[in-house]
Amino acid sequence: MANPLFAPELLELLNAGDAQALQEVANALHSAEMAEFIAALDDIDIWRLLSLLPKQHSAEIFSHFDLDRQVELASDVNRQAMARMLEELPHDDRADLVNRLDPQVAEQILPLVARAEREDIRNLASYPEGTVGSIMSSDYATLRPGMTIKEALEQVRIQAPTRETVYYIYVVDAEHHLIGFVSLKDLILAKPMQTVGEMMNTEVIHAFADDNQDTAAQPIEKFDLLALPIVNTENKLVGIVTVDDVMDVQEAEATTDFHKMGGTDLVDVSLKDAGLAVLYRARIPWLMVLVFMNIFSGAGIAHFENTIAAMSSLIFFLPLLIDSGGNAGSQAATLMVRALAIGDVRLRDWFSLLRKEFLISLLLGLTMAMGAMLLAGFRSPEIIVPIGLTMVAIVLFGSLVGMSLPFLLATFRCDPATASAPLITSIADIGGVLIYFSISTWWLRDLVNTAG
Amino acid sequence: MANPLFAPELLELLNAGDAQALQEVANALHSAEMAEFIAALDDIDIWRLLSLLPKQHSAEIFSHFDLDRQVELASDVNRQAMARMLEELPHDDRADLVNRLDPQVAEQILPLVARAEREDIRNLASYPEGTVGSIMSSDYATLRPGMTIKEALEQVRIQAPTRETVYYIYVVDAEHHLIGFVSLKDLILAKPMQTVGEMMNTEVIHAFADDNQDTAAQPIEKFDLLALPIVNTENKLVGIVTVDDVMDVQEAEATTDFHKMGGTDLVDVSLKDAGLAVLYRARIPWLMVLVFMNIFSGAGIAHFENTIAAMSSLIFFLPLLIDSGGNAGSQAATLMVRALAIGDVRLRDWFSLLRKEFLISLLLGLTMAMGAMLLAGFRSPEIIVPIGLTMVAIVLFGSLVGMSLPFLLATFRCDPATASAPLITSIADIGGVLIYFSISTWWLRDLVNTAG
Repeated sequence: MANPLFAPELLELLNAGDAQALQEVANALHSAEMAEFIAALDDIDIWRLLSLLPKQHSAEIFSHFDLDRQVELASDVNRQAMARMLEELPHDDRADLVNRLDPQVAEQILPLVARAEREDIRNLASYPEGTVGSIMSSDYATLRPGMTIKEALEQVRIQAPTRETVYYIYVVDAEHHLIGFVSLKDLILAKPMQTVGEMMNTEVIHAFADDNQDTAAQPIEKFDLLALPIVNTENKLVGIVTVDDVMDVQEAEATTDFHKMGGTDLVDVSLKDAGLAVLYRARIPWLMVLVFMNIFSGAGIAHFENTIAAMSSLIFFLPLLIDSGGNAGSQAATLMVRALAIGDVRLRDWFSLLRKEFLISLLLGLTMAMGAMLLAGFRSPEIIVPIGLTMVAIVLFGSLVGMSLPFLLATFRCDPATASAPLITSIADIGGVLIYFSISTWWLRDLVNTAG
Repeated sequence: MANPLFAPELLELLNAGDAQALQEVANALHSAEMAEFIAALDDIDIWRLLSLLPKQHSAEIFSHFDLDRQVELASDVNRQAMARMLEELPHDDRADLVNRLDPQVAEQILPLVARAEREDIRNLASYPEGTVGSIMSSDYATLRPGMTIKEALEQVRIQAPTRETVYYIYVVDAEHHLIGFVSLKDLILAKPMQTVGEMMNTEVIHAFADDNQDTAAQPIEKFDLLALPIVNTENKLVGIVTVDDVMDVQEAEATTDFHKMGGTDLVDVSLKDAGLAVLYRARIPWLMVLVFMNIFSGAGIAHFENTIAAMSSLIFFLPLLIDSGGNAGSQAATLMVRALAIGDVRLRDWFSLLRKEFLISLLLGLTMAMGAMLLAGFRSPEIIVPIGLTMVAIVLFGSLVGMSLPFLLATFRCDPATASAPLITSIADIGGVLIYFSISTWWLRDLVNTAG
C-alpha cells in the first residue's frame, strides 16, 4: 500500500543527488515505512534511490514491497543489478519472488547470482506451494555442542547480521543433524565455561519441510514460539519458519476460507486491485453451477402444480420457508467450517455434533414455526399447520445438511469451506420446495384430489 | 484440549508421591504439552500435582489451561493457594482470569495476594475488553540511558527470569517515560563501553493502552515485531503486547467475523463444548428477524396474484431467480467484509468499488441470464424474456446491496460483518420477488389485463 505523503520530497532529494540526506531518512524510518513511502515513485526512481543506500538496507526495504511490485521492479532493471539484489534479500522472500517471476526473466537473472545463493534460491523455490518448505527461511543461526558459552556468544555475534533471527539458535552435529536448541536468553544466563551441549534443550519441537505448512504453524501458535526449526527426512536442519511468516499465512488462509464460505475463489489478490476478468473468473463458477442446480427446484414446483392450483396462498410463504432453511443451514455450515479450520472439532466428533445439531435445529425450527404460523394466521389460516410442519422440517434439513457437508468434504480430503453459504442455501431451497409441497399436498389431499 | 494419553501414568506417579519422577516428566515436556496431558485429571489431582512442582513452573503450566478451566480450578482450591498462583502467573493471563472469576470469589482471593501483584492485577484487569490494555502484559524489561552496555547486559540477566521477553528492551527515563528501544541482538553486538543512550533507537513504534487493540496488532504485523511497547497518555511505559498474543487476537477476531457472516453470534466459545442454550441464543435472533422480514416477500407475491394466476409457470423459476440474487449478493458481501477487515479497502474507496461492482454484476447477471433463459426455453419459452431481464436485475440488485451494506455499517461505526450472508440473501429474496413479478407483470400486461 503506497503512501504518497513524502514521495515528492524524496524525489527532490534524489534528483539533487543528496545521498546523505536520503540515508538519514532511511535510517530514521523502519524499512516497511520507507517501502510504503517510496512505493509511490516510478520504478526507475525507486532503483535510483535504492542504489544510494547500503546494499543490505536497500534489500530490507525492497523485501517490504508487495510481491507483485517486486516482480515489476525486477523486470524494470538490468539483470546484474537484480542478481545483486537477490543475493541480499531474505532467503524466504527471494524464493517467493523467483517463483513469481516470468520463467524467462528468472533464467536470465539466476546465472548471474553468486553460486551459493543461487543454489539456496533454487532449493527453497522448489518446495510446492502450501508446504513448510515454501514458507521457510534458510538463514538461521547454528552452534556446535562442544563450544563453550563464551565461544557460542562470539559465534552469535558473527552470525547475527545475516540471520533471520538469533534469538533461537539451533545446535547441529558435524553432519548438520538437528540435535538441540538454545535461546539467546539461555545463553546470556549461562555460565561462560559451560558447554552448549551441557545446557541445550534436546527435546526440540520441529516440523518437516515436505509436510503441509499447518504442521509448522500449529506448534508456533500452541507453544508461543518465535521460530520453529525445519528438518528434512534425514533429520538434517534445512531451515526455520518464523512467527511473522506464520501470521501472514494464517491471515491468508482465513481470507481464503472466508471467501470460499461466500462462494468465491479469489486467491491472493486484493479486492481493491483486482480487475474485472479476475473477479469474473472468481465468482461465475459457483453462480452458474447453482443456476443449473436449481433445475430441481423448478421441476419440484412443476410436479406439485395441482396442489398450488388448489391452494394458491401456498406460494406466498414459499420464499419465507426456503429462506429460513437456507439461513439455518448457513449458520450450521459456518460454525462447522470454522471449528474444523481452527482445530476445535475433529472428524471423530461428527456423531455427537450431529446429535447436538439435531436437537438445536429442532428447537430453532419450533420457535420459527411459531413465528411463521403467527404470520400465516393473519392471511391464510387454513394452511397454518403445513406451514408450521414445513418450517420445522426445513430447518432440520438445512441445518443437518449444513453441518454435515463440511465433515463429508473433510473426510474425502476436500476443503470443508467448499460447503459455502450459497451452496447450502441452494440445497436447502431445493429440499425446501420438495418438503413444503409434499407436506402441503398431504395436508390438503382432499382439496387436491377434488381439484385435480 | 485435554489429551488423556498419559493421565493414568501421571496419576500413578502422583498417588505414589513420586515428586522426582513428576518433575522429570514436567521438565522434558513443554508447559503447553504438560497442561494438555494433566487437563484430563480431576481438579483436585491437578492441584496435588502442581504443588509438587516449583512455583514458577506450575504457574507456566496453569497458564496454558483454557480460561474456563482456569476459572474452575481457581474455584476448586483454597483461596491462599490461588493467591500464591496468581502471584506467579503471567501478568496478562492473570488479569484475564480475574476478570472471568465470579466477583465474590475474586474478592476473596485478591486481598490475600501480595500488594504489588494485587495492584498490577487490578490495574490490568481494569482495561475494557477490546482495548490494548486488555491484552498487554506488565512484565517487560527496562534500562536507563546512562548505563554502559556491560551494565545493561547485567541488568538483562537479572530481569530475564521474570519478564515476558528480554529480546526487546525499553529505555525509560527517571519518570518512566518511554525514550528509546534496544534489542538484545543490538546489545550483544555493541561495544561494552558504549552507553545505552548512545546506541538506542529513539524512534520507537508504540501504541496507547486505551486505544483499540488493533492499533497494537497492526504495527506488530506490519513491521514483523516480536513485541510492541504500550504507553499511557503521558507517554509513560505501562506494558507490552507480544506477538503471540496478537496471533491469538487475530484468530479470535477472524472467528467472530466468520460467524457473523454466517448470521450467528457465538463469541469465545468452542463449538464442541457449547451447550444447547448457548447455541440457541447465538442463532435464534437473526433467524427470527429474517422470518419476520419475509412478511414483505409474502406480501409482494400476494400483490401480484393476478400475474401469477395468468401465467402459473412463473412460479417454477421463482426459487432459481431469488436464489441467484442471494448468491451473488453473498459473494459481494463476503469479499467486501473481508477486505474491510484486513485493511485492503477503506471507506473512501466506496465509489470506485461501487462502479466496479456494477460492471462485474452486469457481466455475471448477463451470463446467468443466458443460463436461466436456456432452462426456461425447455419448459416455458413464453417467459424467457422476463426471466432473462429479471436475472440481470436481480443479480445487480443483490450484488450492489451486498457490497454496499458493509460500507454503510462501517460508516456508522457498526461491524461490517453484520451484513451477513443470511441478511443479504433475505434482502435479495424480497427485492427479487418484487423485481420478478413487476417485470413479469409489465411483460405479460396484455395477458394479465385480460385474465384479471
